[in-house]
Amino acid sequence: MKALRLHRYQQAPSMDEIDEPKVSGPWDVIVEIGAAGVCRTDLHIIEGQWAEIQKPDLPYTLGHENAGWVREVGSAVDNVKPGDLVILHPLVTCGLCGPCRIGQDSHCERASFPGINADGGMAELILTNARAVVKLDPSLAPSKVAALADAGLTAYHAVRKAASGLFPGSHAVVFGAGGLGHIGVQALAAITSAEITVVDRSESALELARTLGAHHTILATTDDAVRKGVRDITEGGAHVVFDYVGELGAEKISPQLLRNRGSHYVIGYGGAIELPTIEVISKEISVVGNLVGTYTDLVELMTLTAKGQVTLHTSEYPLDAALDALDDLHRGRVVGRAILVP
Amino acid sequence: MKALRLHRYQQAPSMDEIDEPKVSGPWDVIVEIGAAGVCRTDLHIIEGQWAEIQKPDLPYTLGHENAGWVREVGSAVDNVKPGDLVILHPLVTCGLCGPCRIGQDSHCERASFPGINADGGMAELILTNARAVVKLDPSLAPSKVAALADAGLTAYHAVRKAASGLFPGSHAVVFGAGGLGHIGVQALAAITSAEITVVDRSESALELARTLGAHHTILATTDDAVRKGVRDITEGGAHVVFDYVGELGAEKISPQLLRNRGSHYVIGYGGAIELPTIEVISKEISVVGNLVGTYTDLVELMTLTAKGQVTLHTSEYPLDAALDALDDLHRGRVVGRAILVP
Amino acid sequence: MKALRLHRYQQAPSMDEIDEPKVSGPWDVIVEIGAAGVCRTDLHIIEGQWAEIQKPDLPYTLGHENAGWVREVGSAVDNVKPGDLVILHPLVTCGLCGPCRIGQDSHCERASFPGINADGGMAELILTNARAVVKLDPSLAPSKVAALADAGLTAYHAVRKAASGLFPGSHAVVFGAGGLGHIGVQALAAITSAEITVVDRSESALELARTLGAHHTILATTDDAVRKGVRDITEGGAHVVFDYVGELGAEKISPQLLRNRGSHYVIGYGGAIELPTIEVISKEISVVGNLVGTYTDLVELMTLTAKGQVTLHTSEYPLDAALDALDDLHRGRVVGRAILVP
Amino acid sequence: MKALRLHRYQQAPSMDEIDEPKVSGPWDVIVEIGAAGVCRTDLHIIEGQWAEIQKPDLPYTLGHENAGWVREVGSAVDNVKPGDLVILHPLVTCGLCGPCRIGQDSHCERASFPGINADGGMAELILTNARAVVKLDPSLAPSKVAALADAGLTAYHAVRKAASGLFPGSHAVVFGAGGLGHIGVQALAAITSAEITVVDRSESALELARTLGAHHTILATTDDAVRKGVRDITEGGAHVVFDYVGELGAEKISPQLLRNRGSHYVIGYGGAIELPTIEVISKEISVVGNLVGTYTDLVELMTLTAKGQVTLHTSEYPLDAALDALDDLHRGRVVGRAILVP
Repeated sequence: MKALRLHRYQQAPSMDEIDEPKVSGPWDVIVEIGAAGVCRTDLHIIEGQWAEIQKPDLPYTLGHENAGWVREVGSAVDNVKPGDLVILHPLVTCGLCGPCRIGQDSHCERASFPGINADGGMAELILTNARAVVKLDPSLAPSKVAALADAGLTAYHAVRKAASGLFPGSHAVVFGAGGLGHIGVQALAAITSAEITVVDRSESALELARTLGAHHTILATTDDAVRKGVRDITEGGAHVVFDYVGELGAEKISPQLLRNRGSHYVIGYGGAIELPTIEVISKEISVVGNLVGTYTDLVELMTLTAKGQVTLHTSEYPLDAALDALDDLHRGRVVGRAILVP
Repeated sequence: MKALRLHRYQQAPSMDEIDEPKVSGPWDVIVEIGAAGVCRTDLHIIEGQWAEIQKPDLPYTLGHENAGWVREVGSAVDNVKPGDLVILHPLVTCGLCGPCRIGQDSHCERASFPGINADGGMAELILTNARAVVKLDPSLAPSKVAALADAGLTAYHAVRKAASGLFPGSHAVVFGAGGLGHIGVQALAAITSAEITVVDRSESALELARTLGAHHTILATTDDAVRKGVRDITEGGAHVVFDYVGELGAEKISPQLLRNRGSHYVIGYGGAIELPTIEVISKEISVVGNLVGTYTDLVELMTLTAKGQVTLHTSEYPLDAALDALDDLHRGRVVGRAILVP
Repeated sequence: MKALRLHRYQQAPSMDEIDEPKVSGPWDVIVEIGAAGVCRTDLHIIEGQWAEIQKPDLPYTLGHENAGWVREVGSAVDNVKPGDLVILHPLVTCGLCGPCRIGQDSHCERASFPGINADGGMAELILTNARAVVKLDPSLAPSKVAALADAGLTAYHAVRKAASGLFPGSHAVVFGAGGLGHIGVQALAAITSAEITVVDRSESALELARTLGAHHTILATTDDAVRKGVRDITEGGAHVVFDYVGELGAEKISPQLLRNRGSHYVIGYGGAIELPTIEVISKEISVVGNLVGTYTDLVELMTLTAKGQVTLHTSEYPLDAALDALDDLHRGRVVGRAILVP
Repeated sequence: MKALRLHRYQQAPSMDEIDEPKVSGPWDVIVEIGAAGVCRTDLHIIEGQWAEIQKPDLPYTLGHENAGWVREVGSAVDNVKPGDLVILHPLVTCGLCGPCRIGQDSHCERASFPGINADGGMAELILTNARAVVKLDPSLAPSKVAALADAGLTAYHAVRKAASGLFPGSHAVVFGAGGLGHIGVQALAAITSAEITVVDRSESALELARTLGAHHTILATTDDAVRKGVRDITEGGAHVVFDYVGELGAEKISPQLLRNRGSHYVIGYGGAIELPTIEVISKEISVVGNLVGTYTDLVELMTLTAKGQVTLHTSEYPLDAALDALDDLHRGRVVGRAILVP
């Protein structure tokens, strides 16, 4: 089968012809790829930024946002059958370790991460397991949901963790209305009753945010403008700031926008938190990390997607044009999310 | 009456003869001081460190950890009566603002803080209100509980917030077994089932911690020793680190001691959190601020005290010797907490 | 001033001329009535059903759902001022007892309940206190919100308690789309992401429910029809059943509609729960009582109302026609909620 | 191998010689039985009370409380290895269904229940799966923990669910200090700070309860004595009543012992809840079902057991004397729990 494989860091991956994966374990599931998201993380992987952290054996197949149809299942699999339309949770988890036993499977102690440290979905087929597959309504198009498997899941997870504190009258401030943030805004509008304020440096991103449920928007021209804008809108500060940027200053200003007992949800990364302990205690604020999402989060996100409450803008490329998609992404030419289709 | 009053920053306060406070408002309560804690914060106040933050009018009476007997009450007060033994919540709160309405009265929007920005309890009498008084069992000695009103309350509040996550098999690491920390250890032993590990630079502090409920102790000779010690004991990191120091490096190493999804509870202050966002998200950890405690926290702490589950070591000084107490505290000569008594 | 007063049970109340209330306590607030809801409870009071439970001294003024403008305040009141538009929490609470201190003021140990056991709002003026008044946006009409003070608050409180378990994909079943239930449906649509199914014996009530956010409706012709309808829609049973009826069989069938770990929220009353313990444990279900709501619940409900997310159908009567309103209510002639206006 | 098998209801089971179980599935685990609890449920099974509910194929092997040593594992099992000492969660769960994915595996949609509807542990060997085994410290004796696998787990689960509301000063009332209840008392003492009151008809059961952590005991001579006793001790009613009886009147009086917002935790069964909805709402109380416990609950309970915080009184019988054990249990001659050992 065809597969886009990375042979050497800092060198373009190549479209190779490789053997199809086989079912060997009882929980194995082989999925025929219907759509694979192309993500900025793929560019970082090629550059080698993840080499030391994930240590994959090269060559391997890229693609960590996948949806498609079940082709074959292992002997113990009874939750899906060949032909079922599925989206794949990005992690292949064990179901036995402590975190898996309490539903925190994104911290599975024995997980693999196809596309990151194992063969991914920029190919005709992918090998995953029964714990990773979420069955979808057959009416959904794989290309419309694939990018929710990782980026969307991450955006949703943070909102879901915060949701029980976002009652009527509370204020959620969203930093960054890009790939993750614009899903975050939709999730906030769908599952909380918070007043939503979006901060971004791009007026067009803010315009999109308003159509997706933002009640207020602030153009991030200066830190002072952001502080004043948030102060005026929230009358005392945000209950939660969702920082989908995590660098470029967003991570520094976010805690300053909180009211007493507020929380800075860190989702984006790259920068560093620098916060005097006196500020942490005198306002009794929290800084809360967020990582991907659980299987159950993905099930819920698919429920919202099926209802039309979360949607993605996508640009489709045939699998054979995967390198064009990566190049377009690198050059900032993709509108919405790039998706590879068969 | 006699009162220890601060007339000028960086100058010793003086024992003055001033008018007794009078009941003027309907919720006023006047308490005859049975004991007033002498705290490191008092030294900081005299040095002027709080001048800009709290802006009290000088001169005023020090003393923010108070217990005693009700002498007189305003017309609307019916929860205590003259003669009742009480401990005073450090804040005099309104009962009307948003935080007060949800039981978060330590964030009352209109509170005063006797001893910090209003006349405190290093005197014969203090003026407070009906919302600040917690009735005590008459068998308790004011001098045995007064220092729990602020320091103890702060130590307890953090443990109480974390308690529902500290199930059997979880690991709590306590940084600092001093004034606050040694209360924290007792609170952890009393209300959680966590395995308790205490880290301190002083072997005698660790010895005390072991008698108060610590299951493990680590002498903080080097950061490496702390990291290795916690790793070995916790098999993967702490669920919660209670940082009762908040400076001198404790605030830097604390997040490194957490397992995935763990929390760094900041209680002490002075230093600064410096934490790359990639570390916050990749382990999905949280940094959680803690400030004083609520009225209900103080009620619960007094319940534990009445059962003998939380105790304080104290050294009593007559009110007239208040300056000696401050001086002894400054010179590190006080064993346990210094307490002024009539 | 004019006031509708009950002199004897089972006898119509009379419109009397009585003295205006006076501010005597420091927290007193006198409100000029802009609207007072007429409620089925008023009929029950007149019949004497509450005589033994609440033991009011007769004669007294009816009216427990009140909104209007502050006329005068006591010396300690600083959260509202004369002229402010306010809705009144139905209870006048103390702010000092245990429940008040944790935000559970609807269980205040010293509350009075104007209109039930003290003079209420079917009059020109009412005496309440600073803890009962919620300031409203001046654009809101008292007649449009008054009935939310008790009936609406009760309906909202139950939904708010259940909300954190009503994630995307969960099923809420609402029994009864009448006075309380139709507010419940709006609250569910506003603050949860549950799939909402409404059960009622009246097709027109179901039609209204669909316009207010119900995703599915079931005409309650027989118990079997209800069981089958809920089973088909929920695929395994409801996560929460909101029983706004509490009698006439709704209280019996509700637990049968739950999936494992589901909850039967009891809001209406009159009947009795009869449930073998084997059913309670084998499905691990809960039966959860609900009573009025807290002050903070009312603040949140007013936020939703100001946004247009919760609305009431009302029929206005001048205060002088109060007896007509009661009579129309008794005869089932009122469309929506009857409201007395000056 | 030897196995105690039920061939016909209402007839004594017989000790048969049957084939040893074989590993066939990848997650299978075969355990050499070190101890099997003999439980009142076994008597009910033999009587046929569970025939219609669980529909096991006869003959089958009894024994649902099992501990021992792993003998053989399937190809996918890597959390235990031959020789490991384990206790068995009573359910063999799938790890794929909705409840399993959120850590609520006791509601697994595809579970089997060895000893109840599949071959159990009153034998030399038992077949279970990797998700059911909890590794134990090798120093623990199987006979000392086996009965915690079901009875102990059930008692613990209820306490664990309630624990976050059982803060210092709260009141827990325990109905029944027998097989389950005396574990419940130990769990309450170990993981909550509630004041514990135990109600029982037997003075010797109360005496045992006092040694296990009960602060107060009430001899249940009459309902009035219970009501008065609880009222006096709790000053207003219990926060939680743990009803380990569930019949014989305990289930009727339990809700009457609650304070406002209190909860009646139903664990025992046999009787029926009969509760006017007016009582449910006017006190805003809850009735909460409890069923077995999760895998994680069992891990926590084993942690407490290893620390000596939960202990069982046991009487050992050799497997060959299983019928004697059942007979002694039936005649009320067993002291503590009867345990079969090889």
